[in-house]
Amino acid sequence: MGAGDLARKPNGLPGTLDASGKRPRTERGRKTLRKLLDAATVEFGERGFHEASISGITRRAGVALGSFYTYFDSKDAIFRALVADMSDSVKHAAREAIAGDLSALEVERAALKGFLDFAAKHKEIYRIIDEAEFVDPASYQSHYETTAERILDRLKEGAAKGQFRADPQEVHAWALMGMNVFLGLRFAIWGRDGDLPSDEIAAAANSLLANGISVSK
Amino acid sequence: MGAGDLARKPNGLPGTLDASGKRPRTERGRKTLRKLLDAATVEFGERGFHEASISGITRRAGVALGSFYTYFDSKDAIFRALVADMSDSVKHAAREAIAGDLSALEVERAALKGFLDFAAKHKEIYRIIDEAEFVDPASYQSHYETTAERILDRLKEGAAKGQFRADPQEVHAWALMGMNVFLGLRFAIWGRDGDLPSDEIAAAANSLLANGISVSK
Repeated sequence: MGAGDLARKPNGLPGTLDASGKRPRTERGRKTLRKLLDAATVEFGERGFHEASISGITRRAGVALGSFYTYFDSKDAIFRALVADMSDSVKHAAREAIAGDLSALEVERAALKGFLDFAAKHKEIYRIIDEAEFVDPASYQSHYETTAERILDRLKEGAAKGQFRADPQEVHAWALMGMNVFLGLRFAIWGRDGDLPSDEIAAAANSLLANGISVSK
Repeated sequence: MGAGDLARKPNGLPGTLDASGKRPRTERGRKTLRKLLDAATVEFGERGFHEASISGITRRAGVALGSFYTYFDSKDAIFRALVADMSDSVKHAAREAIAGDLSALEVERAALKGFLDFAAKHKEIYRIIDEAEFVDPASYQSHYETTAERILDRLKEGAAKGQFRADPQEVHAWALMGMNVFLGLRFAIWGRDGDLPSDEIAAAANSLLANGISVSK
Protein backbone atom coordinates (compact mmCIF):
# COMPACT_ATOMS: atom_id res chain seq x y z
CA MET A 1 0.00 0.00 0.00
CA GLY A 2 1.33 3.39 -0.94
CA ALA A 3 1.35 6.13 1.68
CA GLY A 4 -1.10 8.06 -0.48
CA ASP A 5 -3.78 5.57 0.48
CA LEU A 6 -3.64 6.56 4.11
CA ALA A 7 -6.39 8.77 5.41
CA ARG A 8 -4.97 11.99 6.88
CA LYS A 9 -6.05 14.17 9.76
CA PRO A 10 -5.71 17.93 9.65
CA ASN A 11 -3.20 17.95 12.53
CA GLY A 12 -0.62 16.40 10.25
CA LEU A 13 -0.80 12.93 11.74
CA PRO A 14 -1.76 10.15 9.41
CA GLY A 15 -5.24 8.97 10.31
CA THR A 16 -4.19 5.37 10.15
CA LEU A 17 -0.58 4.40 10.40
CA ASP A 18 -0.17 1.19 8.58
CA ALA A 19 -1.98 -1.82 7.26
CA SER A 20 -2.30 -3.21 10.77
CA GLY A 21 -4.32 -0.13 11.76
CA LYS A 22 -2.45 0.75 14.95
CA ARG A 23 -3.90 4.11 15.70
CA PRO A 24 -3.80 5.98 18.99
CA ARG A 25 -7.16 6.28 20.77
CA THR A 26 -6.11 8.72 23.50
CA GLU A 27 -4.52 12.16 23.60
CA ARG A 28 -1.53 10.64 25.38
CA GLY A 29 -1.22 8.04 22.64
CA ARG A 30 -1.29 10.73 20.00
CA LYS A 31 1.50 12.60 21.80
CA THR A 32 3.64 9.46 21.98
CA LEU A 33 3.06 8.81 18.31
CA ARG A 34 4.03 12.39 17.48
CA LYS A 35 7.20 12.04 19.56
CA LEU A 36 8.09 8.84 17.71
CA LEU A 37 7.57 10.43 14.30
CA ASP A 38 9.59 13.54 15.27
CA ALA A 39 12.39 11.36 16.62
CA ALA A 40 12.26 9.25 13.47
CA THR A 41 12.68 12.42 11.40
CA VAL A 42 15.96 13.15 13.17
CA GLU A 43 17.15 9.53 13.21
CA PHE A 44 16.43 8.84 9.51
CA GLY A 45 17.50 12.36 8.53
CA GLU A 46 20.89 12.08 10.24
CA ARG A 47 21.71 8.41 9.77
CA GLY A 48 19.75 7.37 6.69
CA PHE A 49 17.39 4.42 6.59
CA HIS A 50 19.95 1.62 6.70
CA GLU A 51 21.96 2.97 9.64
CA ALA A 52 18.90 4.13 11.57
CA SER A 53 17.57 1.86 14.33
CA ILE A 54 14.35 1.50 16.27
CA SER A 55 16.27 1.88 19.53
CA GLY A 56 17.80 5.11 18.19
CA ILE A 57 14.30 6.39 17.53
CA THR A 58 12.89 5.46 20.95
CA ARG A 59 15.97 6.89 22.70
CA ARG A 60 15.57 10.21 20.91
CA ALA A 61 11.83 10.17 21.63
CA GLY A 62 12.34 9.34 25.30
CA VAL A 63 9.86 6.51 24.88
CA ALA A 64 10.12 2.88 25.97
CA LEU A 65 10.95 0.35 23.26
CA GLY A 66 7.67 -1.44 23.95
CA SER A 67 5.71 1.72 23.11
CA PHE A 68 7.24 1.70 19.64
CA TYR A 69 5.58 -1.64 18.93
CA THR A 70 2.25 -0.29 20.08
CA TYR A 71 2.26 1.80 16.94
CA PHE A 72 4.64 0.24 14.45
CA ASP A 73 5.60 -3.29 13.46
CA SER A 74 9.02 -2.44 12.09
CA LYS A 75 11.52 0.19 10.97
CA ASP A 76 9.95 -0.04 7.52
CA ALA A 77 6.51 0.72 8.95
CA ILE A 78 7.59 3.89 10.77
CA PHE A 79 9.55 5.02 7.72
CA ARG A 80 6.44 4.58 5.57
CA ALA A 81 4.34 6.47 8.10
CA LEU A 82 6.95 9.22 8.27
CA VAL A 83 6.94 9.75 4.49
CA ALA A 84 3.14 10.00 4.59
CA ASP A 85 3.40 12.40 7.54
CA MET A 86 5.95 14.59 5.74
CA SER A 87 3.96 14.58 2.53
CA ASP A 88 1.06 15.77 4.63
CA SER A 89 3.18 18.48 6.28
CA VAL A 90 4.24 19.82 2.88
CA LYS A 91 0.58 19.99 1.90
CA HIS A 92 -0.34 21.88 5.05
CA ALA A 93 2.62 24.27 4.79
CA ALA A 94 1.43 25.22 1.30
CA ARG A 95 -2.21 25.47 2.41
CA GLU A 96 -1.40 27.73 5.34
CA ALA A 97 0.69 29.97 3.10
CA ILE A 98 -2.14 30.50 0.64
CA ALA A 99 -4.82 31.58 3.10
CA GLY A 100 -6.63 34.80 2.25
CA ASP A 101 -8.08 36.30 -0.90
CA LEU A 102 -5.39 35.76 -3.52
CA SER A 103 -5.35 35.66 -7.29
CA ALA A 104 -4.46 32.33 -8.89
CA LEU A 105 -0.96 33.61 -9.54
CA GLU A 106 -0.53 34.93 -6.00
CA VAL A 107 -1.58 31.51 -4.74
CA GLU A 108 1.33 29.87 -6.59
CA ARG A 109 3.75 32.48 -5.34
CA ALA A 110 2.61 32.10 -1.73
CA ALA A 111 2.67 28.30 -2.00
CA LEU A 112 6.27 28.36 -3.24
CA LYS A 113 7.39 30.81 -0.57
CA GLY A 114 5.64 28.68 2.06
CA PHE A 115 7.37 25.56 0.74
CA LEU A 116 10.82 27.21 0.65
CA ASP A 117 10.45 28.43 4.24
CA PHE A 118 9.17 25.04 5.37
CA ALA A 119 12.03 23.17 3.68
CA ALA A 120 14.63 25.56 5.12
CA LYS A 121 13.32 24.78 8.59
CA HIS A 122 12.97 21.03 7.91
CA LYS A 123 15.94 20.27 5.72
CA GLU A 124 15.72 16.57 6.47
CA ILE A 125 12.55 16.37 4.38
CA TYR A 126 14.47 16.11 1.12
CA ARG A 127 16.73 13.34 2.37
CA ILE A 128 13.84 11.32 3.78
CA ILE A 129 11.48 11.67 0.83
CA ASP A 130 14.35 11.06 -1.61
CA GLU A 131 15.42 7.96 0.28
CA ALA A 132 11.87 6.64 -0.08
CA GLU A 133 12.69 6.11 -3.77
CA PHE A 134 14.84 3.20 -2.59
CA VAL A 135 13.25 2.14 0.68
CA ASP A 136 9.57 2.48 -0.22
CA PRO A 137 9.10 3.33 -3.92
CA ALA A 138 5.29 3.31 -3.65
CA SER A 139 5.38 6.09 -1.03
CA TYR A 140 7.83 8.06 -3.13
CA GLN A 141 5.69 7.92 -6.24
CA SER A 142 2.53 8.55 -4.26
CA HIS A 143 4.01 11.70 -2.70
CA TYR A 144 4.68 13.24 -6.10
CA GLU A 145 1.50 11.97 -7.74
CA THR A 146 -0.71 13.49 -5.04
CA THR A 147 1.29 16.73 -4.95
CA ALA A 148 0.94 17.07 -8.74
CA GLU A 149 -2.80 16.42 -8.47
CA ARG A 150 -3.13 19.24 -5.94
CA ILE A 151 -1.19 21.60 -8.19
CA LEU A 152 -3.30 20.64 -11.19
CA ASP A 153 -6.46 21.37 -9.19
CA ARG A 154 -5.12 24.84 -8.39
CA LEU A 155 -4.25 25.49 -12.04
CA LYS A 156 -7.72 24.40 -13.12
CA GLU A 157 -9.26 26.67 -10.52
CA GLY A 158 -7.18 29.56 -11.88
CA ALA A 159 -8.34 28.73 -15.40
CA ALA A 160 -11.98 28.55 -14.26
CA LYS A 161 -11.57 32.03 -12.80
CA GLY A 162 -10.25 33.22 -16.16
CA GLN A 163 -6.81 34.01 -14.72
CA PHE A 164 -4.84 31.10 -16.17
CA ARG A 165 -4.87 29.80 -19.70
CA ALA A 166 -7.64 27.34 -20.44
CA ASP A 167 -7.20 23.61 -20.06
CA PRO A 168 -4.16 23.11 -17.79
CA GLN A 169 -2.67 19.65 -18.25
CA GLU A 170 -0.76 17.17 -16.14
CA VAL A 171 2.38 18.36 -17.99
CA HIS A 172 1.94 21.84 -16.52
CA ALA A 173 1.43 20.56 -12.99
CA TRP A 174 4.55 18.37 -13.11
CA ALA A 175 6.56 21.22 -14.64
CA LEU A 176 5.50 23.56 -11.84
CA MET A 177 6.15 20.93 -9.16
CA GLY A 178 9.63 20.33 -10.58
CA MET A 179 10.37 24.06 -10.51
CA ASN A 180 9.35 24.25 -6.86
CA VAL A 181 11.22 21.10 -5.78
CA PHE A 182 14.47 22.19 -7.44
CA LEU A 183 14.24 25.75 -6.15
CA GLY A 184 13.84 24.21 -2.70
CA LEU A 185 16.85 21.95 -3.26
CA ARG A 186 19.07 24.82 -4.42
CA PHE A 187 17.93 27.58 -2.06
CA ALA A 188 16.46 25.89 1.03
CA ILE A 189 18.75 22.84 1.25
CA TRP A 190 21.94 23.98 -0.48
CA GLY A 191 21.46 27.67 0.35
CA ARG A 192 24.56 29.86 0.36
CA ASP A 193 25.44 33.27 1.75
CA GLY A 194 24.29 35.96 -0.63
CA ASP A 195 21.30 34.00 -1.95
CA LEU A 196 18.05 35.87 -2.50
CA PRO A 197 15.52 35.64 0.36
CA SER A 198 12.63 33.23 -0.17
CA ASP A 199 10.10 35.90 -1.12
CA GLU A 200 12.33 37.14 -3.94
CA ILE A 201 13.00 33.62 -5.17
CA ALA A 202 9.25 32.99 -5.18
CA ALA A 203 8.68 36.30 -6.98
CA ALA A 204 11.24 35.51 -9.70
CA ALA A 205 9.82 32.03 -10.25
CA ASN A 206 6.30 33.45 -10.22
CA SER A 207 7.15 35.96 -12.91
CA LEU A 208 8.50 33.12 -15.06
CA LEU A 209 5.34 31.12 -14.43
CA ALA A 210 3.15 34.13 -15.21
CA ASN A 211 4.70 35.43 -18.40
CA GLY A 212 7.40 33.05 -19.48
CA ILE A 213 10.82 33.98 -20.67
CA SER A 214 10.17 35.10 -24.25
CA VAL A 215 10.47 38.73 -25.26
CA SER A 216 8.08 38.60 -28.19
CA LYS A 217 4.61 37.24 -27.54
CA MET B 1 36.67 15.12 -4.89
CA GLY B 2 33.34 15.60 -6.59
CA ALA B 3 32.73 13.99 -9.95
CA GLY B 4 32.34 17.47 -11.42
CA ASP B 5 36.07 17.96 -10.96
CA LEU B 6 36.85 15.19 -13.40
CA ALA B 7 37.98 16.20 -16.85
CA ARG B 8 35.67 14.74 -19.50
CA LYS B 9 36.33 13.49 -23.00
CA PRO B 10 33.82 14.00 -25.81
CA ASN B 11 33.22 10.26 -26.18
CA GLY B 12 31.42 10.23 -22.88
CA LEU B 13 34.20 8.60 -20.90
CA PRO B 14 35.60 10.56 -17.99
CA GLY B 15 39.10 11.69 -18.93
CA THR B 16 40.44 10.61 -15.56
CA LEU B 17 38.59 8.15 -13.45
CA ASP B 18 39.51 8.83 -9.90
CA ALA B 19 42.09 10.42 -7.70
CA SER B 20 44.51 7.61 -8.43
CA GLY B 21 44.47 8.59 -12.10
CA LYS B 22 43.85 5.14 -13.54
CA ARG B 23 43.18 5.97 -17.13
CA PRO B 24 43.31 3.59 -20.09
CA ARG B 25 46.16 4.24 -22.52
CA THR B 26 45.10 1.82 -25.27
CA GLU B 27 41.99 1.36 -27.39
CA ARG B 28 41.53 -2.06 -25.81
CA GLY B 29 41.74 -0.48 -22.36
CA ARG B 30 39.11 2.09 -23.30
CA LYS B 31 36.81 -0.72 -24.46
CA THR B 32 37.27 -2.63 -21.23
CA LEU B 33 36.55 0.51 -19.24
CA ARG B 34 33.39 1.16 -21.28
CA LYS B 35 32.26 -2.45 -20.70
CA LEU B 36 32.80 -2.03 -16.95
CA LEU B 37 30.81 1.22 -16.83
CA ASP B 38 27.97 -0.25 -18.91
CA ALA B 39 27.88 -3.33 -16.68
CA ALA B 40 27.93 -1.09 -13.60
CA THR B 41 24.91 0.79 -14.97
CA VAL B 42 22.93 -2.45 -15.05
CA GLU B 43 24.29 -3.77 -11.73
CA PHE B 44 23.68 -0.53 -9.77
CA GLY B 45 20.44 0.16 -11.66
CA GLU B 46 18.96 -3.24 -10.86
CA ARG B 47 20.38 -3.94 -7.41
CA GLY B 48 21.11 -0.52 -5.95
CA PHE B 49 24.48 0.49 -4.53
CA HIS B 50 24.41 -1.58 -1.36
CA GLU B 51 23.39 -4.87 -2.98
CA ALA B 52 25.60 -4.37 -6.01
CA SER B 53 28.99 -6.10 -6.06
CA ILE B 54 32.23 -5.78 -7.97
CA SER B 55 32.01 -9.43 -9.00
CA GLY B 56 28.48 -8.76 -10.28
CA ILE B 57 29.88 -5.96 -12.42
CA THR B 58 32.79 -7.96 -13.84
CA ARG B 59 30.53 -10.95 -14.52
CA ARG B 60 28.09 -8.78 -16.47
CA ALA B 61 31.00 -7.12 -18.29
CA GLY B 62 32.64 -10.46 -19.15
CA VAL B 63 35.86 -9.09 -17.72
CA ALA B 64 38.30 -10.66 -15.26
CA LEU B 65 38.13 -9.43 -11.68
CA GLY B 66 41.75 -8.27 -11.91
CA SER B 67 40.87 -5.97 -14.80
CA PHE B 68 38.43 -4.16 -12.57
CA TYR B 69 41.26 -3.14 -10.26
CA THR B 70 43.24 -1.85 -13.22
CA TYR B 71 40.71 0.95 -13.39
CA PHE B 72 38.96 1.24 -10.04
CA ASP B 73 40.02 0.89 -6.41
CA SER B 74 36.58 0.08 -5.06
CA LYS B 75 32.83 -0.13 -5.61
CA ASP B 76 32.67 3.50 -4.46
CA ALA B 77 35.17 4.53 -7.12
CA ILE B 78 33.28 2.97 -10.02
CA PHE B 79 30.00 4.37 -8.71
CA ARG B 80 31.54 7.86 -8.62
CA ALA B 81 32.92 7.41 -12.14
CA LEU B 82 29.53 6.15 -13.31
CA VAL B 83 27.68 9.21 -11.98
CA ALA B 84 30.21 11.45 -13.78
CA ASP B 85 29.80 9.36 -16.93
CA MET B 86 25.99 9.60 -16.77
CA SER B 87 26.08 13.31 -16.08
CA ASP B 88 28.23 13.57 -19.18
CA SER B 89 25.83 11.42 -21.22
CA VAL B 90 22.91 13.69 -20.26
CA LYS B 91 24.93 16.67 -21.43
CA HIS B 92 25.72 15.04 -24.75
CA ALA B 93 22.14 13.85 -25.31
CA ALA B 94 20.98 17.46 -24.92
CA ARG B 95 23.81 18.80 -27.11
CA GLU B 96 23.08 16.37 -29.93
CA ALA B 97 19.39 17.25 -29.80
CA ILE B 98 20.03 20.96 -30.21
CA ALA B 99 22.24 20.78 -33.28
CA GLY B 100 21.24 23.07 -36.15
CA ASP B 101 20.06 26.63 -36.47
CA LEU B 102 17.45 27.00 -33.74
CA SER B 103 15.96 29.92 -31.88
CA ALA B 104 16.68 30.11 -28.15
CA LEU B 105 13.22 28.75 -27.44
CA GLU B 106 13.57 25.93 -29.96
CA VAL B 107 16.86 25.02 -28.28
CA GLU B 108 15.06 24.49 -24.95
CA ARG B 109 12.34 22.45 -26.60
CA ALA B 110 14.83 20.26 -28.43
CA ALA B 111 16.94 19.82 -25.29
CA LEU B 112 13.90 18.66 -23.31
CA LYS B 113 12.75 16.27 -26.03
CA GLY B 114 16.31 14.93 -26.27
CA PHE B 115 16.43 14.43 -22.52
CA LEU B 116 13.01 12.71 -22.39
CA ASP B 117 14.00 10.29 -25.16
CA PHE B 118 17.37 9.63 -23.53
CA ALA B 119 15.81 8.96 -20.11
CA ALA B 120 13.17 6.65 -21.62
CA LYS B 121 15.97 4.58 -23.15
CA HIS B 122 18.17 4.73 -20.03
CA LYS B 123 15.68 4.56 -17.21
CA GLU B 124 18.35 3.52 -14.72
CA ILE B 125 19.80 7.02 -14.88
CA TYR B 126 17.31 8.39 -12.37
CA ARG B 127 17.90 5.63 -9.87
CA ILE B 128 21.67 5.92 -10.10
CA ILE B 129 21.92 9.71 -9.96
CA ASP B 130 19.29 9.82 -7.19
CA GLU B 131 21.17 7.19 -5.18
CA ALA B 132 24.28 9.39 -5.41
CA GLU B 133 22.52 11.72 -2.96
CA PHE B 134 23.25 9.04 -0.34
CA VAL B 135 26.31 7.24 -1.67
CA ASP B 136 28.29 10.20 -3.00
CA PRO B 137 26.62 13.53 -2.15
CA ALA B 138 29.38 15.59 -3.81
CA SER B 139 28.72 13.92 -7.17
CA TYR B 140 24.98 14.42 -6.75
CA GLN B 141 25.30 18.13 -6.06
CA SER B 142 27.92 18.55 -8.77
CA HIS B 143 25.64 16.93 -11.37
CA TYR B 144 22.88 19.46 -10.73
CA GLU B 145 25.17 22.46 -10.27
CA THR B 146 26.89 21.87 -13.60
CA THR B 147 23.61 21.13 -15.38
CA ALA B 148 22.11 24.36 -14.03
CA GLU B 149 25.20 26.30 -15.16
CA ARG B 150 24.77 24.94 -18.68
CA ILE B 151 21.11 25.92 -18.71
CA LEU B 152 21.92 29.41 -17.41
CA ASP B 153 24.50 29.81 -20.20
CA ARG B 154 21.81 28.94 -22.77
CA LEU B 155 19.35 31.39 -21.22
CA LYS B 156 21.96 34.15 -21.27
CA GLU B 157 22.72 33.37 -24.89
CA GLY B 158 19.00 33.67 -25.69
CA ALA B 159 18.89 37.00 -23.87
CA ALA B 160 21.98 38.23 -25.74
CA LYS B 161 20.20 37.39 -28.99
CA GLY B 162 17.23 39.45 -27.82
CA GLN B 163 14.94 36.38 -27.72
CA PHE B 164 14.72 35.88 -23.95
CA ARG B 165 14.08 38.48 -21.29
CA ALA B 166 17.17 40.31 -20.14
CA ASP B 167 19.24 39.14 -17.21
CA PRO B 168 18.37 35.49 -16.64
CA GLN B 169 19.21 34.42 -13.10
CA GLU B 170 20.22 31.24 -11.35
CA VAL B 171 16.59 30.99 -10.16
CA HIS B 172 15.41 30.65 -13.75
CA ALA B 173 17.98 27.98 -14.59
CA TRP B 174 17.05 25.87 -11.55
CA ALA B 175 13.35 26.34 -12.27
CA LEU B 176 13.83 25.12 -15.84
CA MET B 177 16.03 22.21 -14.76
CA GLY B 178 13.39 21.16 -12.21
CA MET B 179 10.68 21.25 -14.88
CA ASN B 180 12.75 19.02 -17.14
CA VAL B 181 13.78 16.56 -14.42
CA PHE B 182 10.21 16.10 -13.18
CA LEU B 183 8.76 15.79 -16.68
CA GLY B 184 11.36 13.05 -17.23
CA LEU B 185 10.39 11.35 -13.98
CA ARG B 186 6.68 11.39 -14.80
CA PHE B 187 6.76 10.64 -18.52
CA ALA B 188 10.05 8.83 -19.23
CA ILE B 189 10.37 6.80 -16.02
CA TRP B 190 6.78 6.44 -14.81
CA GLY B 191 5.25 6.66 -18.28
CA ARG B 192 1.79 5.16 -18.76
CA ASP B 193 -0.28 4.07 -21.75
CA GLY B 194 -2.04 7.06 -23.22
CA ASP B 195 0.65 9.58 -22.27
CA LEU B 196 1.56 12.22 -24.81
CA PRO B 197 4.61 11.46 -26.98
CA SER B 198 7.84 13.22 -25.99
CA ASP B 199 7.62 15.91 -28.68
CA GLU B 200 4.17 16.98 -27.45
CA ILE B 201 5.31 17.01 -23.82
CA ALA B 202 8.29 19.14 -24.84
CA ALA B 203 5.97 21.43 -26.85
CA ALA B 204 3.57 21.93 -23.92
CA ALA B 205 6.42 22.65 -21.50
CA ASN B 206 8.02 24.94 -24.06
CA SER B 207 4.83 26.95 -24.44
CA LEU B 208 4.71 27.38 -20.66
CA LEU B 209 8.36 28.46 -20.66
CA ALA B 210 7.77 30.86 -23.54
CA ASN B 211 4.62 32.64 -22.45
CA GLY B 212 3.75 31.51 -18.97
CA ILE B 213 0.33 30.55 -17.78
CA SER B 214 -1.34 33.93 -17.25
CA VAL B 215 -4.13 35.10 -19.51
CA SER B 216 -3.60 38.82 -19.04
CA LYS B 217 -0.12 40.16 -19.67
